[in-house]
This record gives sequence, structure tokens and C-alpha cells, in this order.
Amino acid sequence: MSHETLDPLFNPRSVAILGASGKRNKLGYLQVKALIDGKFTGTVYPINPKTEEIEGLTCYPSLLDIPNPVDLAIFCLSAENVYKGLEDCAKKGVKAAIIFASGYSETGEDGEQKQRLLTDFANKHGIRLIGPNCVGLVNTTNGLFGTFSPAILAVPLNEQRAVGYVSQSGAFGVLTYMAAAQNGLSFNYFVSVGNEMDTEFSDVIEYMIHDPKTKIITGYLEGAKNPQKLRSLAKEALDYNKPIVLMKAGRSSAGSRAAASHTGSMAGSDKIYDSFFQQTGIVRVDDYEDIISFSKLFLSNKLPSGKNTVIITSSGGRGINEADRCEAYGLNIIPLKEKTTTEIKRHIPTFASASNPIDLTAAASVSNPELFIAPLRALIEDPDVDNIVLTEFPLNWTDDHPLLQEFIEISRQSNKFIFITTFPLEGMSIPKGIKSLENNGIPVIPGHLNPIKGLAKLVEYSEQNRKNQRIYQSEELDYLQKPDVQYLFTTNERLSESQASHILESYGIPAANRRVATTKEEAVHFANEIGYPVALKIDSPDILHKTEADAIRLNLSSELDVEQAFTEIYENATSYKKDAHINGVSIQEMLPEGIEIIIGATNDPVFGPVIMFGLGGIFVEVFQDISFRVAPLTRLDAIEMIEEIQGNSILKGARGKAAVNADQIVDVLLQVSTLVMDNSEWIEELDINPIIVNENGLKAADAMIVVRNNIQQTTSVRG
Amino acid sequence: MSHETLDPLFNPRSVAILGASGKRNKLGYLQVKALIDGKFTGTVYPINPKTEEIEGLTCYPSLLDIPNPVDLAIFCLSAENVYKGLEDCAKKGVKAAIIFASGYSETGEDGEQKQRLLTDFANKHGIRLIGPNCVGLVNTTNGLFGTFSPAILAVPLNEQRAVGYVSQSGAFGVLTYMAAAQNGLSFNYFVSVGNEMDTEFSDVIEYMIHDPKTKIITGYLEGAKNPQKLRSLAKEALDYNKPIVLMKAGRSSAGSRAAASHTGSMAGSDKIYDSFFQQTGIVRVDDYEDIISFSKLFLSNKLPSGKNTVIITSSGGRGINEADRCEAYGLNIIPLKEKTTTEIKRHIPTFASASNPIDLTAAASVSNPELFIAPLRALIEDPDVDNIVLTEFPLNWTDDHPLLQEFIEISRQSNKFIFITTFPLEGMSIPKGIKSLENNGIPVIPGHLNPIKGLAKLVEYSEQNRKNQRIYQSEELDYLQKPDVQYLFTTNERLSESQASHILESYGIPAANRRVATTKEEAVHFANEIGYPVALKIDSPDILHKTEADAIRLNLSSELDVEQAFTEIYENATSYKKDAHINGVSIQEMLPEGIEIIIGATNDPVFGPVIMFGLGGIFVEVFQDISFRVAPLTRLDAIEMIEEIQGNSILKGARGKAAVNADQIVDVLLQVSTLVMDNSEWIEELDINPIIVNENGLKAADAMIVVRNNIQQTTSVRG
Repeated sequence: MSHETLDPLFNPRSVAILGASGKRNKLGYLQVKALIDGKFTGTVYPINPKTEEIEGLTCYPSLLDIPNPVDLAIFCLSAENVYKGLEDCAKKGVKAAIIFASGYSETGEDGEQKQRLLTDFANKHGIRLIGPNCVGLVNTTNGLFGTFSPAILAVPLNEQRAVGYVSQSGAFGVLTYMAAAQNGLSFNYFVSVGNEMDTEFSDVIEYMIHDPKTKIITGYLEGAKNPQKLRSLAKEALDYNKPIVLMKAGRSSAGSRAAASHTGSMAGSDKIYDSFFQQTGIVRVDDYEDIISFSKLFLSNKLPSGKNTVIITSSGGRGINEADRCEAYGLNIIPLKEKTTTEIKRHIPTFASASNPIDLTAAASVSNPELFIAPLRALIEDPDVDNIVLTEFPLNWTDDHPLLQEFIEISRQSNKFIFITTFPLEGMSIPKGIKSLENNGIPVIPGHLNPIKGLAKLVEYSEQNRKNQRIYQSEELDYLQKPDVQYLFTTNERLSESQASHILESYGIPAANRRVATTKEEAVHFANEIGYPVALKIDSPDILHKTEADAIRLNLSSELDVEQAFTEIYENATSYKKDAHINGVSIQEMLPEGIEIIIGATNDPVFGPVIMFGLGGIFVEVFQDISFRVAPLTRLDAIEMIEEIQGNSILKGARGKAAVNADQIVDVLLQVSTLVMDNSEWIEELDINPIIVNENGLKAADAMIVVRNNIQQTTSVRG
Repeated sequence: MSHETLDPLFNPRSVAILGASGKRNKLGYLQVKALIDGKFTGTVYPINPKTEEIEGLTCYPSLLDIPNPVDLAIFCLSAENVYKGLEDCAKKGVKAAIIFASGYSETGEDGEQKQRLLTDFANKHGIRLIGPNCVGLVNTTNGLFGTFSPAILAVPLNEQRAVGYVSQSGAFGVLTYMAAAQNGLSFNYFVSVGNEMDTEFSDVIEYMIHDPKTKIITGYLEGAKNPQKLRSLAKEALDYNKPIVLMKAGRSSAGSRAAASHTGSMAGSDKIYDSFFQQTGIVRVDDYEDIISFSKLFLSNKLPSGKNTVIITSSGGRGINEADRCEAYGLNIIPLKEKTTTEIKRHIPTFASASNPIDLTAAASVSNPELFIAPLRALIEDPDVDNIVLTEFPLNWTDDHPLLQEFIEISRQSNKFIFITTFPLEGMSIPKGIKSLENNGIPVIPGHLNPIKGLAKLVEYSEQNRKNQRIYQSEELDYLQKPDVQYLFTTNERLSESQASHILESYGIPAANRRVATTKEEAVHFANEIGYPVALKIDSPDILHKTEADAIRLNLSSELDVEQAFTEIYENATSYKKDAHINGVSIQEMLPEGIEIIIGATNDPVFGPVIMFGLGGIFVEVFQDISFRVAPLTRLDAIEMIEEIQGNSILKGARGKAAVNADQIVDVLLQVSTLVMDNSEWIEELDINPIIVNENGLKAADAMIVVRNNIQQTTSVRG
């Protein structure tokens, strides 16, 4: 459904309140009051057959008695009365509804069934729904406080409202809304999606992407229900230059268990969420403060050009701490070039420090506030500097103070990102000139909102934004005809090594040269063809542990050795597992020395096919030095997968070895991605382990494919 | 000097203010005012020859004119008048002084010289000094506001004052003092140590350890000037059950550079600071909030018995987030046993969750606050539970509310650690009954102070406290006579491998069997003695890279091979470096297969000898998987060094191999510790790389020692 169908939820001309009440402790009263106090710009129709009037508004006995059209209905009804209300909506031609009631899918089977009936009915009649089991929807730009939460109305609003917020947790969402408002950041939209029976998390994001009033899209996520849609929306958002900033909860195992039971959705592996956000350009944050500080920084209307950060402080200790914080979040505290320090030194006392962090000393705070000007001027001339962070600022400079005006003027002439982070003390850390500063793109953010982390996240977004085109450069591998390999998946739960190798080769992935021999003579013949030395291994889908079965012989260099090995392997395999189906003995070239890498794929319950990359041995076993990406991969995804593992230095030629050809690894990753997307309904698990890679190239030495259990005989995703 | 000599600084009966002034913008006025406003319980004597009276206090023309004894002098004088003032102090018999003036060691050579004169003079006359270049000293229990900072007086104080604070940064210290006070935590002592010319950081800690009013010692540290003293104080503090909680700044490279220039002290490697804190039981925290939340939790008078934590929430989202936070800081969110969940389920609605985090749902916040009682009762019966964290609490329960009293009573009967962390919203998150809660050992801490991290740190302290005796179990290795090896250090800047091996063996460290041969015949003779196969290597302090010089042969198994190798190695070595001093060719047993470990020692500029442990190869090169401890090591230090590297799983027998004998590695670590302590004035660097270890034992295969550059011919530290 198109995102425009959500418009009646955000911008209704008229709202009916089903279950409106005159009793002050009732939800139906709180909702009426919220719309009045919120100064909703449209018409409000309370519905209650037993009351004439609530807070001065005429009551109607039923929805159908309202003489005018109704865009939105807000249900202050308990679950048993909701279906009836929805039927009225259909009759009245209501376009959208908010349903607060709980007692649906969050309670189990029965509730789920009840919820499905609502959804089906609404879909049939073209009514868009928010909820059930939600706190509601707020649009602060037209006063639509579609919520019973009195807390939301308790906080004052700012003029600037350009941050949309959508939450999978009602209570946490309300807290975030309030904390943001108390810290001077007002959301334009607040949406608690509840059970997401119709409008789900990504639908709201889609609406905000196309909404000109929203400059940043933020939210609280416990489990993505539609990651494919989220992925394509993320692309759109980058095109619109709108950051999507999500607090994804459930990082820990306990948190993720709780999230799964809280939202009823699969939580999925947190590491894969990280990869997903990385590859889609969605900014992942850890807490509500990050949403506030990111938004405040973004609304300055500048984007950081990079990570190089300079701190200006008047307290040595503050400078050191903020430098620590910058580096902890991945920003660079750069040494300043001589020209810049020389220029700064000309203007500050000799006991002050002109290196980064620049320490103006207490003199600047106490007696000589003009010291804040000259270093700024010098820094904006330095092309190495991306960001300038002030840990103090003259508190007494009012909006019209000439030095404040001068400071702002210097900042305006520069594209460097400049902001002030104050030590959070009540009543004594906010500069008097904060309004002028913020209106001119210099945010002032108290330290407890962790604005340094906000800056680091904004730098991350800024980089994603710049490489937008590259991120989504698709890699269709059009040279590949879709190979016909699906017949192999019907044979067994687990493919034999030679079957798996055949599939790899069909997708262009180099594998060790191999033939399967069923007789001693064939084995010798193939060995001669392949060239010595060779390896012999049993080829059977039923024997997984070839070493345990003593059914593998390496480095054979004569016909005699091959004959003998063939016999031994056959005998050992059959005595190891009598009823094993044996395809034969695989004769395989011995690969040259190189580095072992592993490429794999699994079928994630949330994201579907996910590709894995790592080096072999202790890299995986001891250090879990692995990278993931959700398939399909772009070329950039594949490059980043290789770059982000720590063992990448080995591939680049550490320990005195030549660097390997990383482009070839990228190709294999893309080929694997295509392979698993083509066969996503068949492949549960794919493991190419190891691939031997050296400066000359790479070849898969072994591969394994597990077929999915409940195969649905659908057609493949790819044409 | 004894810590009692600092008493006049903290508890003077009388204070003279040198440079007191009647002018309101002068430091000398602010100081007089601070003592009056702070209600100092002793006598105050302003000194000013030109004024009769300041703020109602009689002025004296000079210190010597005061008719009564003076314990403490506060210097509101600029640097050029300080020495003269100190002379007066000596004449008057003043016992201590606080000096604010800057212009000393922080400015360079000249200032340092000036400062030394002051220190020498004060030492000679038994005057204890704080400063110079400091913000002063505050004792809030007797109103001694020995500071010119008006900000300090601007914050209200709490009744409970049992947290001492000492800072190497004046400004950051003041900010922390104020933030703590604004969050309901008052320090009893605040000390800004400035340039530490006499009283240094650890002296203040020593005073607080012996001060009965101080229950926790906290501080801000940029560089430890006397780590040995700090280490022995840490031991004392554990004996007194007083935590030492330090915010050590300068984690990052830029931060550590800045710290070094700010305090004029060496900052040292941050990783070694971490190790030092770990081995001494000092709690390292990252920010001032951690000091506040740790202190508040500690003052509850309970100590957590372990990491097992249960969350009680009324918002699913809050529960998930706090669970994430707990696990991020190393606490366990445990699954509850059936008995406990069954009991909880009996009392909460069916739609609530009885698993951890326990989600009482909004019902508990809105309509049924009594829901908070039953789960607490069930949890204190569960022996698996150490800590109970409530993310909400009924706001309307006043101090005398029966349910609040019931809640407190349950908590009092239990040794489990219970506290409340609120979502930080102004004016709407602090329960009315906070006083009763806190007075009964249930802290209420707003989330922006990160109390979960505080809890994790308290658990860490609690563990250190429990193993106190073990931490400091000394390991004298008395069976070792101090070997006479020092003559070797005078021979060369770098010892030959055989010299280094000889030293190892003198300390009982097993090394590969080896002899140095100077002739072919000798070589064969030694090889026969050692047994084949053998390795031959050049033994020369001048040839570091034996492989590069082609002066190493492995796995030789016959007399003929040995003869030939001897000749080749000699020839290659001499042609590689003509003037190299050659001791001969070392004939060495080939060690059996095993795991390579590395044990090393360096001479840290701050901490002196530091021991390093790690596995060889990529463990060190790619993952920097190394542990450090400051020498001398205790047995527990050595055990923890082995346990804390990630590669420890390899030693424990991962990858199908047998576990090695870790006790033997512990012994070698202790032997190396003794070796470097015995010879600390000689050894710059020691590197035993590799030691081959397997299930049967271990032997050093190679060793290297670099001799210190500027050898002072002093006697050894050890008897």
C-alpha cells in the first residue's frame, strides 16, 4: 500500500473518539483532553451515547451520527468492542484508526486470531490502522495528540520540529519523547506501533521519508519484521539525505531473548543487525541520548567532512577527557601542523597550550574570554581539520555581544563542523548566547547527552551519505546464466563434497581440480590427468568426518600410492559406516601453499541468506574474527567484509608473505551471494572451508552444503 | 613522612590568609569569604598590612603579629612573594600551607628551580605543603573551604559526607565536586594537588585511608608519580575495606600526550595502568558519573555477593535496555529457576513476564503498585540471585506508606544488593520515599549516572576485596639464592643468546640444553653429548638476525651434518659482519613440538619493570593478545596473566591437543619477575621468545637481554 494512505493518520481534518468519556480517570477522557490541550487544528468528535458534551465538545451517540466526514477514529475501547467500532468506521468511510487496546497477539493464539480478523476487515475496507496494544500517534505540528499518555503533554515544545520518531516500545518511546523535549529537542511525529497489525515500523519510516517536514528519522527497534523493505527504504533515505537513526535494543543474549518475547518478533543475531545497518547506511545508536545528540548536531545543517577533530578547552582535564572520548568513538585527535600552532601561539598566553587539545587555561574562562576567538580563526584555515569541539564557552556572551557575533561569523564562513559540549551542571553551564549560536549552526549540547558520540555517529552517517552510490552499486553478475543445479538439492539432506564443488564451479568459483573415481584404474587414470601430487578422499554424503573414518590420503605422488590409497579408503569408509552411500573416491589436486580463508552462508530467521567471511584456524576458533553481510551483496559489501576482519593484515602480506589478490576474494563473495540468492529456498547452510589463497589466485579445497528441511517447491527468486 | 603530618591541612584550629584583601574581585577576598560562608569551625586570621578588617574579621599586618598559634597558612600571593611568606611561616611555627600561585614547574626549568627551593625550605622546617598551581583543599566536615573557587560554595551539601576526593586537575576536580553535590553526594574532602611539590596524590590517599571519616577514596589521576607507594597503599585500603576508585584520564594516545604535558609527569602506557589497577585492587572508572554512582551504591553498606543480576521493570523496553547494559558491563542476567518464576507468577497478571527481566507491565506503574512487592519476596529466597535492579518504583509511596515499609523490610532481611535506577526525567522520576529507601540501604540513582556500570564496578571491587589475601600473597622464591650474574651486564649492550640463557638457568628457568663450541671437534662432541637431532646457531652479541646472516641450521642428525653446519655458520657469520665478536657456535637440542609462548619484561618509565605474557605468532602480531603486570608478581598475578589472554583456550587444550601444564608457566613468570627485580638497574628489556610448552613441560628456545643505557652502579634492590 502506498505511504500516502497513512496521511489521514498524521494529518486528519477530523478525529472521532470512540469511547470518549467525561470521567477524569478514564482513557476516553484523557484522549479528549489531550486533543484540546494540544490545540489540535482539526475537528474533534467525542462519541458517547450517554453524554451530551465533554469539555465543551458536543458528543455524538455513534460514529454514524456525525454529520460531517471523519478522517481518523481513535479507539478508547476495550478489546471486545473494537471489531464493532471498526465496522462503524467502514460504514462511515473513516480512513484510519488508532487502537490502544491490548489483549491481541501479545497474549497468544486467541489474541492473534482476534487481531487477524481486525486486520483483514480493515484491509478489505481500506482503513489504515495503528496498534493495537500501543500508546498512539502524535503530530506536534498540528496538535494531533492521539494518545492517552498525559506525560507527553507535560513537556514544553520547541519551535523547531523536524525529527520523526517511531517506537516498538510504547513506554520507552514516551520516555524518549519526554527526555528529548526536556533537552530542547521536539519531535514532529511520535508513533508507537504496538503490535503492528497493519502499519508496521518500516511503513512509518517510509511515510517520514516522503514527508517534507521530517529531516531526520529516528526510532526504537526491537526486531525488524520486514528487513527487505527496510533495506530499500534505507537506500531511499540516503537519496533524500535523511538519516535513519535507530536504537536497536537486545544486544545482549538476555536482552535479545526479552525483546523476542516483548514484540513477538524474532530478534535475530545482534552481530547480523550490526552488519545490516553497516551495509544499508542506517545509523545504529545505543541509547536515547544518542538520538537526541545526533539530531541536535544534524539540525545544525552542516555535515562533518571527516574524522579529524580538534578540541578547544579552558581546562586541561576536560581537554584530556574529551580527547579520550573522541578516540574511543573512532574520531581522530590530530596533531596540528606547525603553521596552525604558530598562528595560535601568537594569540594565547605562553603558559597555554597550542597543541591539540588546545588548552586556553582558566584565563579564558575567568578573565580573558576573547582567547576563544583567535584559535577558531586559525583552525578554520587549516585544511586538515574537520571538526572543532569547544568544551567551554564564555557564559556571559549574550546574543548581541560583539565577540559572540565575531565567533559566529567565523564559523559561518567555514564548512567545518563546530559545536560546544558543556559539563552538565544545573544552572551554570549553558552560555547566555545559546540561541544565536544554535540558530547559526553551532549546537550547544550538555555532556550527559554524549555529543562526542553523536558527532562520531554523524561522521559515520556523513561517510555513508558520500558513498551512497557505491553502497548500492548492484553487482548482478549478468555474465552468469542461472545454472541448473537445483536437481542436486533433492538428493540428500547434505550434499557430497563433489556435488557441492560442482555447484561452486557452476557459479564460477574456482575449486581444486577433482574427479570422482569408482575403480582403482579410474583413480590412477584421473591422477595422471590431474598431475601429481594428488589427494584422495572418500566422496559420500553420509561420511562427514573423513579423517575420523581414515578415508583421506594426502600428497600421493605415484600410481602405486594412488592404487593403494584407493583400496584403503574404500575399505575404511565401508567399515566406518556400512550403509553409507558412496559416490566413489575423489581424486584431487594438491593445492599450493597459501592462506586459508572460509566463506560461508546461513539462513538467518530474520534476514534470510547471510554471507560470512573469515580466515581459518584460530582466527575463527579463538578470536571469532568473522564478518557478516546480508545477501545479496554489493561489491562494496564484499570489500568491507574483507577489510573489517582483524586478520586482514595477513591477507595484505604480513609475516613476510606476499599480499594475496583481494579482488578474487571479492569475486567469490559475490558469486556465493548470487548462488545462495538463486537457491535460497534450498540452501540452509553453505560452507567453503578452506579456500586456499595466495598471490597467484585461489581455489576452494573443500565445500559443504546442507539442504533446508522444509522445502517449499516454489520457483526461484531470480528470473 | 607520616600521614599525621597532613592533619593540620585538614583539621587546623586556626588559619591565616596571606594576601587577604577587602576587594571583592581579589582571590584574597574570595578566600576569606569562603571560610566565613563555609562556617569554618576554627579561627581565621586575614593578613594585610594596609587593612584593619575584612568582612568583620580583624586583619594583621603580618603572620608574626598574630598573638596565637597558627596551624595552616593559605597563600593568596603571587609567585614572587611566596618564598618570603614561607619564611614567615617557619618563624611563626606554622605547620602547613596551601599555595595557589602558578608559575612553577608547569612553566619549565626556571619555575622548577623556584619550586625546588620552596620544597627544600618547607621540608627543612617541617611545613607540609599543598600546591602550588592548585585550586586548594576543602574539608566539608569542619567548613574548611581552603579555596578561592566560588563555584564550590554554590552547591548545597548533604548530611552524609564520607567520600574523599583528590584530583590532579583543579578545574575537573571542581566540576566533579559540584556534579556530585548536585546529584546528592557530598565529598568530605576535596584536594587539588596541583604540582605536588610536597604533598603528592598518594600522600592524600594515605591520609584518607587512616581517616575514620572517609569510607571511600576517590580521585582523578593523570599520571602516577609514585606507583610503588600507591601499590602498598592499595593493599592497606583493602585491609581497611575502603575502596580506592580512580578516574584515570589519558586512555587515548592524544589524551595521554596531553596528560603528560598537563601534569608534567610521564603518562605511561594505558594498558599497563589497567594491569596495575587490576593487580592492586584499585577500581578504575572512566568518568565522574562512575565515581558518583559507585559511591552511592557503596554507601548502601552492602556489598554484592556476585554478578548474578535480576531486573524488575514495568516497561518491557526499559527491561531490555538495562539487561543489555548489565551484560555489556559484565554482569549476568540469569535465567530464573522454576521455583522462583512459579512463585512470582502466582502474584502477577498473566500478561506480565516472570522471566528475567521481570516485566510487571504498565499495570504496576499505573494502577497496581503492590505488584512490586511479591517478586522481591520471591527473589530474596533464591540463592542464585546476587543483585536486584528496579528500573521503576512507585512514585507515590511516601516514606510512611505501608507498602514502602514492607518493601524496605524485605530488603533489610536479605544480603542481596538492591537498588533503583530511574529514567532521568526532570521532576518525574524520583520516588517520594527516596529518603527512607536510601537510609535503609536501597540507593535510588538516575540513569544518566549509569548506576549499572557502578554496580559492575562494585562487584569488581567486592571480588578484589574477597581475594585480598590472595592478591598480596607474596612469592619470594626463597629457594633461590640471588645468582651472581651481574658481571654479564657489563660486557655488552645486548647479551648473546648463550649469556641470556645462562641467566635464565641461574634463575631456574628451563632452557634448551646447549653448549657453545669454538671448534668443529667441540661441536661434534657437544652434539653427541646433547643427543640428535640438534640445532646450530651463531652465538654473537653483534648478530641479531641469525636467519638473515644465514647462521642457523636446524634438525641436524649426524656428526657429518654438524661439522658441515659449523663451518658454514662460521663463514656466513664472519662474512655477514666482519668485526662481529663471536663467542662460538651454539649447539642446542631440538625441542619437541608444542605451543609457542612469549614471556618478556620491559622497563616502564612510570612503573619500572613490567612483565609481559602472550602466545607467539599471530596472537601477538595480529591480535595484540598480550597481558601485562607490574613486577614483582604475586602468584595470583601470574595466574591471571595467563587466564586473561584470549589464546588461553589454546593452552587449555583447544584444537584437539592436550592441555599444557599452566603451573609451570606460572613458575617461569615468577622466576622472570625475580630475575628482573634483582637486576632492575641493569635490564632494559628481556625477551624469551619462544618458550616451547606442551603437556610434558616447557623450555626456553631463545632469549635476548638488552642492557640499560645509563647504568648507575648502585647495589641491587634485593638483599
